[in-house]
Formats: sequence, C-alpha cells, structure tokens
Amino acid sequence: MLNEKMYALGSKRSVIREIFEYCKIRAAEIGADKVYDFSIGNPSVEPPKIIADTIADLVKNESSVALHGYTSAQGDAGTRAAISDYINSKFSVALTADNIYMTCGAAASLTITLRAVVNPGDECIVFAPFFTEYRVFIENAGGKVVVSEPEEKTFQINISDFEGRINEKTKAVIINSPNNPSGVVYSERTIIALTELLKRKEAEFGHPIYLIADEPYRELVFDETTVVPYVMNYYDDTVVCYSFSKALSLPGERIGYIAVSPKMQNSRNVYLAVCGAGRSLGYVCAPSLFQQVVKRTVGTTVDVSVYKKNRDLLYDNLTSYGYECVKPDGAFYLFVKALEPDAYKFFEKAKQKEILVVPCDDFGVKGYVRIAYCVDEARIRNALPAFKALAEEYKE
Amino acid sequence: MLNEKMYALGSKRSVIREIFEYCKIRAAEIGADKVYDFSIGNPSVEPPKIIADTIADLVKNESSVALHGYTSAQGDAGTRAAISDYINSKFSVALTADNIYMTCGAAASLTITLRAVVNPGDECIVFAPFFTEYRVFIENAGGKVVVSEPEEKTFQINISDFEGRINEKTKAVIINSPNNPSGVVYSERTIIALTELLKRKEAEFGHPIYLIADEPYRELVFDETTVVPYVMNYYDDTVVCYSFSKALSLPGERIGYIAVSPKMQNSRNVYLAVCGAGRSLGYVCAPSLFQQVVKRTVGTTVDVSVYKKNRDLLYDNLTSYGYECVKPDGAFYLFVKALEPDAYKFFEKAKQKEILVVPCDDFGVKGYVRIAYCVDEARIRNALPAFKALAEEYKE
Repeated sequence: MLNEKMYALGSKRSVIREIFEYCKIRAAEIGADKVYDFSIGNPSVEPPKIIADTIADLVKNESSVALHGYTSAQGDAGTRAAISDYINSKFSVALTADNIYMTCGAAASLTITLRAVVNPGDECIVFAPFFTEYRVFIENAGGKVVVSEPEEKTFQINISDFEGRINEKTKAVIINSPNNPSGVVYSERTIIALTELLKRKEAEFGHPIYLIADEPYRELVFDETTVVPYVMNYYDDTVVCYSFSKALSLPGERIGYIAVSPKMQNSRNVYLAVCGAGRSLGYVCAPSLFQQVVKRTVGTTVDVSVYKKNRDLLYDNLTSYGYECVKPDGAFYLFVKALEPDAYKFFEKAKQKEILVVPCDDFGVKGYVRIAYCVDEARIRNALPAFKALAEEYKE
Repeated sequence: MLNEKMYALGSKRSVIREIFEYCKIRAAEIGADKVYDFSIGNPSVEPPKIIADTIADLVKNESSVALHGYTSAQGDAGTRAAISDYINSKFSVALTADNIYMTCGAAASLTITLRAVVNPGDECIVFAPFFTEYRVFIENAGGKVVVSEPEEKTFQINISDFEGRINEKTKAVIINSPNNPSGVVYSERTIIALTELLKRKEAEFGHPIYLIADEPYRELVFDETTVVPYVMNYYDDTVVCYSFSKALSLPGERIGYIAVSPKMQNSRNVYLAVCGAGRSLGYVCAPSLFQQVVKRTVGTTVDVSVYKKNRDLLYDNLTSYGYECVKPDGAFYLFVKALEPDAYKFFEKAKQKEILVVPCDDFGVKGYVRIAYCVDEARIRNALPAFKALAEEYKE
C-alpha cells in the first residue's frame, strides 16, 4: 500500500551505509584509532576561515528578516550574478545570472536537471565507474540507466563503447570529472572526442542530447598543470551541476547551483523546465544564509594540499606493496584493484585487518574498491602496515 | 523534447508571482510606501534574538568540519531527540528520535511524505481553501487531487461533503490548520468528526488512509484559549509535516521535519519509505547548521503579538467598512469575500487603489481574496483609507 519503490530505497542499506554502521560498532569495541575507516567521502579539511567570518558578519550586520527570508525560487539575484561573473572570468564563457539556478547541493542539482529534461522511457548514459546515486536520480525522473564501460586501466571514457550505447532514445549523458570513485580527471582529448561524437549524434537523431557535467570535485585537483576542461566550451547542450560541498567543505549545508549553457538550443526553455522541476520536487529555494555566504566567497577553496599529501602517501606506499591503481589527479578517492577477482571477498579480508574500503560493484566496475582518503594523515600512516600485511597475505 | 510538465510549471507564473513582479515595477513608479502589497506570505517579524546568538556561538565554538558536515540522511540524532522530546512534553504523545525525519522545510516535508505513501492513481483529498502548491506536490507523486468543499462562512471542514469524496482509492488526506489562506484553526470538534469518519472508512476499505497534517503555522495563534489539536492524539495513521519557517521567521533556511506517528500501522515501514523518498528526490540531509540551531532553540517562537495586532487592526476596520471575513485565529492571512462575484475583477479594482491582494480561485474557493498581513503596521494604516474608498465605490 506504500510506495514500494520508496520503501525499497529507504530500507535497503547501501554498502557504504552498512560499513558506516559496522565502523561505529567496531570503534566502540577496539577504539576508533584502531579502525582504519576509508569508506566515507566526507571532507576532512576545514572550511576556509573566511566562511566562519562571513557567517558571523552576516548574522551581526544584516537584517535578520531579509537574511533568513525567502529568496526567489531560482536564487538571490546578487548571488547568481556573482557566480556567473566568476565562471565567465575563469572559463571565458558568457553566462548571465539568468542561466544560474541555486540548489540544495549536487544531488538536488542532478535530480532537478534530470526531471527537467527527461521524459519517461528516455535513456541516460553514465560512465562506469559512476556515483551509485545516479541510478536513483535517473529512475526518479522516469529514465532508464545505460552504463558505458571505461577504457581499461586509465578509466577514461571508452568512446567506441559509448558510441554503441547512444540511440534515438538517448536524452542525457552524465559525466563526473574529477571522478568519484576513481579520482580520474577526463583529459581534454576525452572531452573533445565525447562532444564531437555527441554533436554528430544530435545531428543524426535531430534532437538535443544534454550533457550533464556533475562537478562537485572541480577544485580538488593536485597539480597546477591539471586541466579540468569546462564542458560548455566544447558542447552547447551542456548543463553544469555544481556543489560547494567539497570545494568549501560544507557538505551538510546543501548549497550548489545549476548552470544552463546560454548557447544551448532553447536555453531559456530548459532553464524554465529546471525552475518547474525544482518546484515540483519541493525545493522552494536554496538555503538563504549560505546563498549570501557563497556570494561573498565564490572562488575560495579549501587547502587542497592536504588531500594531495594524503594521495601521495597512500598511492606511493600502496603501489610499492603491489597494489594496482590509476594515480588520481583529483577528488579524494583511490580506485584500487582488489587482490582477488571478487571485490566483496577482498573487502572481507581487508576488514579482518581493520581496513574498511568500499567494494565498487555498485559503481559499475567489478573487482575494485574505493579508498576515500579525506581522513587525518595519521589514519593513513597507522593503516599502512595493515595494507602491507594484506598484500603479503595474497602473495603467500 | 523537454519534460513538458516541468516546463509548464516553470513557465506559467503563479498569480502571486505575477503580483510580486507588478509590485516591483509599481513601487519604482510611485514609491514603495504608496503600494499596499498584501500578496506575499513572507514573515515580517524578526527571528528571536536567540537565533543569531546561537549561530554565532556555533560558528565560534564548534568544529567547523563537524558543524557543516553531512548529518545522517534522516537528520542529526541529537536534533531529532530534542524535537521528539519537545513534542512529547507539549502534546503527550510518545515519539522517539526514530519517528522524526529532518527536512528542507514544509514543501520538502509534503513532497517526501506524499512520494512515500502515494502510488500512481491514488487519490489525495485536500480541503478548500488550500495552499495551491498541494496540487503540484500530489501530482509529482503521481496522485490525483480531490477537493472537498468547506462549510460556508466558517471554513471548517464540511464533513458530509468530505465523506462523499472518500473512496477505496483514497490514500491520503491533507489538512492545514491554522490555514493558509483562511487563517482558520480547525476546532477539536472538526478534528474529531474528521478522524472518526476516517477510522470508519479505513475499516470499510481495509487499508490505511494517511492523514497528513501540514502545520507550519501551528505556533501562530492569537489567543491563549485557541487550541490547535495535535492530530496524532486523535488518529493513528497521522504524519505531521512541520517547518520552522513561520515559527522562527526562517523561511529561506529550509528547515523542518516529518513526524511519523509511532502508533501508525506499519509505522517503521512508512518511516523507511519517507527515507527512500527523500533519497529519491535528491534530499541528502537537511541543512546542518540549522539542524543545530533548532536543536538548541526548539520551542522558541517569534513575537506573535505583532501579527495579532495587525489582524485586529485590519479585521476591525475592514468589517466596519462592510467587508465580510471570518475572524482568523491564526497564521497571518485574512480571507475576505470579494465585493463582486469575480475575485479577479475585484482584484483589478483594488489594484487601481494600489491595494494588492491575491484572488483565491486557485486555492479552490471562488469569490475570495487573501490578504497577507505579515507586513509593517504602517502599511496597514496607510492602506485603510484605500480599503474604505474601495468599499464605498461598490456601494455606489
């Protein structure tokens, strides 16, 4: 009598959630410092100090009625202008405030965008490995998930596999770079190949195929030479789904945006459909205090060097122990090949050594685990002997 | 090719939105103090000072990573416990933290609850006059809106009309007391009649009919003798959808909760379906800073006497000019009979006198307008001569 799909979604714990609950119990048994939890993608670096200062200033000096009042549904005009100006200056595009729709974070950005452009029965292509909730959001919009297999080892997009998945029902394609769970940044070469193919397919089928760029990890890259191509510059039918969760370490505050390319066919109509989808899904406006915070701090990011140090420490040691892993350019995940074909069995063996990682079958790639290194450096250092012992056990 | 329903929702402005845009233009032409805008339900009373103090204290003294980090999807355990304790002490029910699900405000509470319990084709009954967005939220869940006509003049529920609308497809019933747009509080007699009927119908059809109590205005009542019955005490299959928007004047911050009655048939399963629906709709968690704020301030409310004073000023004068209106016990709306059958024509004549009110056809009652008196007292005083002149024009 309930909605069974919703019951199933609420009652079936995700693997990550299962591990989270196990961690709490295990930490109580043997002490939190003896459990090497690498399962959760919760930022560990403090938000920049300017965030606390800005909140304090707003609360002290602004009218409280205005500060905490409704903004327009698409978001405060000044906030949207600050964001479009910033994007324009950084990526040489020509957005206006009216191309920006403020959201309650990345999940809202994606849910709203998909609901705006997808009709029941439409297909949406995702690239393995992909964030597991894409499946939930696409299905909420009535769409069908189509998974494209990656290039081996590099985890870049496999263009010929992708081409085989596109058909006239393809309505949207989601990319996520830097990627969760692989940490891979799609190269400009990949983005060009992807978008050139999409342009041909749009012409072939005579309708738009929306490229949805899910970019919460955009600022989390570790080398100044690493370019995360701004997809709007390569493809007109692009929607960027952004969140400040990772860039500012504010994941609980639910603040992000949707940017609809002004060069898109029917850009205004897509934007209006985004507004309608936000309304339909119960999003009245994005949190008003944090709209003001990001207005004043746009362009600020957390100290990414902390994540880079963690990456190097883990990557260098794990590969020296014999683990196979693509070196991630961004995000805060290491995508490691399990030391046996079944990632769940490997997960169980790691667990015996108090190491908690996430088997990635649900991310669309079998035989891999995700190590989230958004943790204290001490946890990594403490865990290294256990990782080494685990690898040696497999060599025996 | 877009989702046409979403485009329609985003491109068709609501009446309120139209008036809002007109106001901005008219204020620029003749001065904001000469435009008597009573169209928007945006709280005008300042949030209690403890809100700013609490935010400042949290930002200064708590770990920023924890304060702004993800909470569990259902909300911070301490916040949920504070809320369930408060409700228990105030209304003598027996909730636990595990009956509470934190949301991004009232619209999210309703959208999530409806998605959790409604299957496509199910019917949901609403009582005219009703908040227009109920239609959007019910249709998002795939439900069909059924409107029950009110008692004349009192705008209490018309039980015999309601009985005629219930059938085996009825899955949910939404009540909103104090009511937007009428300001009416449903009496205990009304609630008893409603719930006794629902119990009989549940027995007759052999399945639960969920009573969804949308209660953002609960604390906004003007007389200590006014009782807003706590529906869980009358009916087991109750879900309370709450928001702090009005009680604390924080509408932009999007913070509220869903309380699932522990006495409900399959209470745990309904709660899990709520969790699933929140996940499906892209709500990762309610904003984390404001979860901590309401944890510390639950039970605090704005100074309601300001709204009471406004109500008395408007009600006493308007009725003395000959307007017909039920005296509202709560919320911050006056539901006034238009001085001609067509509320839109009346709206236009009022507009000629710079008075902006909302014609209520979309709220399910023809021939009425809503006056939102969550405004400065000065605006009301300045508008009174115009209201008087308007009434006199109709007498001529």
